[in-house]
Amino acid sequence: MQIVIIGSGNVAAVLGRKFKQAGHEILQVFSRNASEASKLAYEWDTESTNYISLINPRADLYLIAVPDNSIEDIASRLKLGSKVVVHTAASVPKEILQQASENYGVFYPLQSLRKEMKNLPVIPLYYDGSNEKTLKLLEKLALSISGENVIHAKDEERLKLHVAAVFVSNFVNHLYVLASRYCRKEGLDFSQFQPLIEETAVRLREMQPEQAQTGPAIRHDKETIEKHLAILKDHPQLKTIYLLLTESIQQGI
Amino acid sequence: MQIVIIGSGNVAAVLGRKFKQAGHEILQVFSRNASEASKLAYEWDTESTNYISLINPRADLYLIAVPDNSIEDIASRLKLGSKVVVHTAASVPKEILQQASENYGVFYPLQSLRKEMKNLPVIPLYYDGSNEKTLKLLEKLALSISGENVIHAKDEERLKLHVAAVFVSNFVNHLYVLASRYCRKEGLDFSQFQPLIEETAVRLREMQPEQAQTGPAIRHDKETIEKHLAILKDHPQLKTIYLLLTESIQQGI
Repeated sequence: MQIVIIGSGNVAAVLGRKFKQAGHEILQVFSRNASEASKLAYEWDTESTNYISLINPRADLYLIAVPDNSIEDIASRLKLGSKVVVHTAASVPKEILQQASENYGVFYPLQSLRKEMKNLPVIPLYYDGSNEKTLKLLEKLALSISGENVIHAKDEERLKLHVAAVFVSNFVNHLYVLASRYCRKEGLDFSQFQPLIEETAVRLREMQPEQAQTGPAIRHDKETIEKHLAILKDHPQLKTIYLLLTESIQQGI
Repeated sequence: MQIVIIGSGNVAAVLGRKFKQAGHEILQVFSRNASEASKLAYEWDTESTNYISLINPRADLYLIAVPDNSIEDIASRLKLGSKVVVHTAASVPKEILQQASENYGVFYPLQSLRKEMKNLPVIPLYYDGSNEKTLKLLEKLALSISGENVIHAKDEERLKLHVAAVFVSNFVNHLYVLASRYCRKEGLDFSQFQPLIEETAVRLREMQPEQAQTGPAIRHDKETIEKHLAILKDHPQLKTIYLLLTESIQQGI
């Protein structure tokens, strides 16, 4: 497939790499950030532009991977006739693209992507399209880079997926942030927690998270909880979160 | 080293296995749960007992891996003279063992251990001892099963480590629980989040959690946050935690 990548951030960079690896051709990279666009173009042995009017009209697919609040503006300036155009956002309806083409859709990667990644991770892909033809094309593209992890999902389902992703990734990372700051203040080596952090994540391959729940909260171990709260007395932010999550675990709904 | 394991739960089972692998001899397993004790004894080709008076007095080390609130009771029934005795608890002072022997200490694994584990993970070990001789022996034992991840830590430091471990493991797992229940209710496949969950954990090998923070909260993306809260209106527990953690991320202390 011949593809134009619109955007030069993390999602653009990683999906572009996956497309290249799968044998697709990146015809062009467009970005307002000319320097980032030309870096990606160099990597993919293709051309770049920062003029929207110079976007190559001969691709099969236009992938818009830009911040959510820029998608509409970009779409309003594209006139692609019947070429397929998609965005990659979880929380933006696909209809925002209907002004750009009659064949539009979404190509949402359920993964945290970073340009600097050396090893590209597995990327579950949720796609949607404005009609059967577009759905077929996007499914085929998704299968070519994500094998079994390809699912059709409409706007509302994508929004729900995003909410769950916020819990298991953004919020989880925030707990890592809180623990690492605490370690820094208390002179503890946060890197010693890496095996525990990875074990906690990897074990979900084999068991449901409910079965994996351990710790003083689920055991209703008041004595240990009191000791922890005493030690957190000078860390009000940690203490608030400790209390709320302990209570939430004990609700056991 | 000749070792008696006291307890037959997750920590007893996994540390016992690590000791065996490192070439130590498990002299005996004691547990009130005779059936679990004999299973472990069978695995390690040794004997078991559920009578505390029959604990073998000729070992070099007695490892007490039982629930926190049973340690004192066990210790009060042991008279080990100068044999080294340790418990494995984060939040229990080492002095609780002084009635059992003059040489006592702690052997705390900073890892979430489960009997069912096929592949034993890396286990950072924090040890403490009542005197130089005990410290030396425990350091040597720790090095034999955990290589570089061996650190001397006193009671207060161990308690602080435990607090941080609660955040990065128990609380993180609770976020997985909440997300998986939400997925079940909404008809989403939670297993599709596994690559994202692992990526979020593994990337901390290469960057600080602060650098890895992404998502609508850190971007102050009010529009997406509003969409998420709207979709969580029938999920009060999730909504409360969403609001608190979003606020905590935005504090950016």
